[in-house]
Amino acid sequence: MKKDFFNVLSVQEFIQALYSFSPLQTQTRSIEAADGCILAEDIIAAEDLPLASRSCMDGYAIDAASVFGASEANPAYLESVGDIDIEKPASFTLQNGECAGIVTGGILPDGADAVVMVEHTESLGAGTVEIRKSLAPHENVMLKGEDATTGNVALAAGTRLRPQEVGMLAALGIQEVPVVSAPKVGIISTGDELVSIDEKPVVGQVRDVNSYTLAACARRAGATATAYGLVEDNLTSLKAALENALAENDVVFLSGGSSVGVRDLTVGAIEEIEGAELINHGVAISPGKPLILAKCGNKAIWGLPGQVASAQVVMFILGMPFLRYLGGDTNAFDQSRWPSKQAEISRNVPSKPGREDYVRVSIAEKDGKTVATPVLGKSGLLKTMLQADGVAKIGADSEGIYEGATIDVLFF
Amino acid sequence: MKKDFFNVLSVQEFIQALYSFSPLQTQTRSIEAADGCILAEDIIAAEDLPLASRSCMDGYAIDAASVFGASEANPAYLESVGDIDIEKPASFTLQNGECAGIVTGGILPDGADAVVMVEHTESLGAGTVEIRKSLAPHENVMLKGEDATTGNVALAAGTRLRPQEVGMLAALGIQEVPVVSAPKVGIISTGDELVSIDEKPVVGQVRDVNSYTLAACARRAGATATAYGLVEDNLTSLKAALENALAENDVVFLSGGSSVGVRDLTVGAIEEIEGAELINHGVAISPGKPLILAKCGNKAIWGLPGQVASAQVVMFILGMPFLRYLGGDTNAFDQSRWPSKQAEISRNVPSKPGREDYVRVSIAEKDGKTVATPVLGKSGLLKTMLQADGVAKIGADSEGIYEGATIDVLFF
Repeated sequence: MKKDFFNVLSVQEFIQALYSFSPLQTQTRSIEAADGCILAEDIIAAEDLPLASRSCMDGYAIDAASVFGASEANPAYLESVGDIDIEKPASFTLQNGECAGIVTGGILPDGADAVVMVEHTESLGAGTVEIRKSLAPHENVMLKGEDATTGNVALAAGTRLRPQEVGMLAALGIQEVPVVSAPKVGIISTGDELVSIDEKPVVGQVRDVNSYTLAACARRAGATATAYGLVEDNLTSLKAALENALAENDVVFLSGGSSVGVRDLTVGAIEEIEGAELINHGVAISPGKPLILAKCGNKAIWGLPGQVASAQVVMFILGMPFLRYLGGDTNAFDQSRWPSKQAEISRNVPSKPGREDYVRVSIAEKDGKTVATPVLGKSGLLKTMLQADGVAKIGADSEGIYEGATIDVLFF
Repeated sequence: MKKDFFNVLSVQEFIQALYSFSPLQTQTRSIEAADGCILAEDIIAAEDLPLASRSCMDGYAIDAASVFGASEANPAYLESVGDIDIEKPASFTLQNGECAGIVTGGILPDGADAVVMVEHTESLGAGTVEIRKSLAPHENVMLKGEDATTGNVALAAGTRLRPQEVGMLAALGIQEVPVVSAPKVGIISTGDELVSIDEKPVVGQVRDVNSYTLAACARRAGATATAYGLVEDNLTSLKAALENALAENDVVFLSGGSSVGVRDLTVGAIEEIEGAELINHGVAISPGKPLILAKCGNKAIWGLPGQVASAQVVMFILGMPFLRYLGGDTNAFDQSRWPSKQAEISRNVPSKPGREDYVRVSIAEKDGKTVATPVLGKSGLLKTMLQADGVAKIGADSEGIYEGATIDVLFF
């Protein structure tokens, strides 16, 4: 690709380019540290879960057929042959006309296929129990193997682990689990007007914000993040810093001061890195158009705009999903699965067709409705991001959204 | 409160009882580790942000009044007196009829109050610049102090830190920040049918799932979690384990096997702990009705149902918000702020008035609509939680929801 060819991709084309990267290798994690990770392999159950059919209720284990048609008006009568200990299976088998006391979690005895809740029964003394309800077979019973069966897939590769999936692994006795590795992210800031946050800037200088904002975003996306601090904006320093960060990470996010010159320098430095291929010179997205991407084997270099709000919005819309994708989440770019809330937009928002606009909005409840108010302001300021609860998308084929229209607010 | 008085609270009453606990003490965190925390004190800016008025664009710094009425058809002409270095303020002051080249981030010279984008200008040579657009004062300028002003509150106590707030702290040169401490959570499982996950259960035994599920939930709520493992369900062991966990943590979650007896034992053990006050014997919520709460100074003991799904739903609806509340989030119980999605329910779901029902649902996109399908099944199984994307609430005053009704799915 020629350096002077100004190659701006649509958001969809850019995401297609991101799909040319492969999700990361498998690593093993203890289940205590696996919440949020993506399973790298199918998990096969080594035993049935539950191991045996168990009661969901306190009551009596019965054969459902023996109380067929029973009701308040027309109860059935069974003989109780004893109570079942929760810790071990019953030593007896229920015969016709018999029942047995059982607690939640107790193992069903042979001859029983359902449990009647204690509320629907009355013990009449001398072992006789009145049953005032008919039951379907398996009612109030957790069946042997209902959660998982021996030799079958209990959790499929690609599953995102939540607390309940972690619970399933525990139930199966699995203490360590193969997951897709968390991406390692390196963050570099450049721009000669930047100073580190422990310095006192003079007029003309600003502290390095992006290193901190972008690291927090990367961690929210499940990555580990290392900030390499400030790099002088000259070709030699930038190339050396990129090569160093690239050697130690899967993805490098470089945010480029705020001047145009720095962007050209970034492109120049990337082109000097062995094996690096520059994918684009921009994306049809606002804010964030100057975004550039390079591929170096399966490692990625992102050149983000230096403006603090632009850098973070691009990170949120494209960078964080990319990190989740590398971490094994195949649906990471599907915004319909992101935390969001429908809201009514409080006023007209015009937009330039041909690019995706992400309008920062704050939300509030008003007269029982959720109302989103656009937060307008300059991308170099932090204020708009502080005031916003999230962003609303205006598609590339749209000239804007009208006051009162329903939009999805994607939450920061 | 008498042990034998069966005191079931409504969900609102239970949340009121939770508000009797105080948010935790302040701790200091590095800003790299503060994302997600709640600020414990106002952050006062020690300097203006920006330090001086800066350009948001590449173009020319001008006095807006000097191009009043300028347009494509009727351009204005200014004399450029030079380019402004991004790193230091200009040494000159703009006079009437003058402009100066400026890049994004450059400091406005005295005499300029706006920046015209380079696209709306043309350099005609010999220092003359054609300006084809009129400008409002401050257009394309980030004003001195627009993000924060010296001596004023930049971020208020109670603010939840997101990446952008972390960025604001960096911009102000603040490396450590006072936040409300993350709660320390202890988790205990009891129930003699339980075995630890490294053991092979025999029929009548099940592995301890709740220790892992609840720890993952607690961590998602920003807490640190320690699992104390299995405790025998007798009064002496349970009391000793509770006292030990209570000494080391802010909150103890005890999940009580699945039999009724264990619950009575939990109540008994709590009543023997010095200074512990039992708040309730249940909550009008489904699943999760057997939930009990005790207050011991500002520390809390939760007795959760042993059923895996019930325990997790109660943790999600009440336990996790409580941990966030202790961590300083005053809106933690406001479900309208939780990650959620509106969906259409796929069928009638009846509900018993007088209790809040949380119906597990899975969601899917169908014909451009988001459809939520109830996931039915037994609370002792993991399956329903694995299939569900979240829960939909049916209020205590409702007899159910009708097919086609719009509901909010709260995401797990």
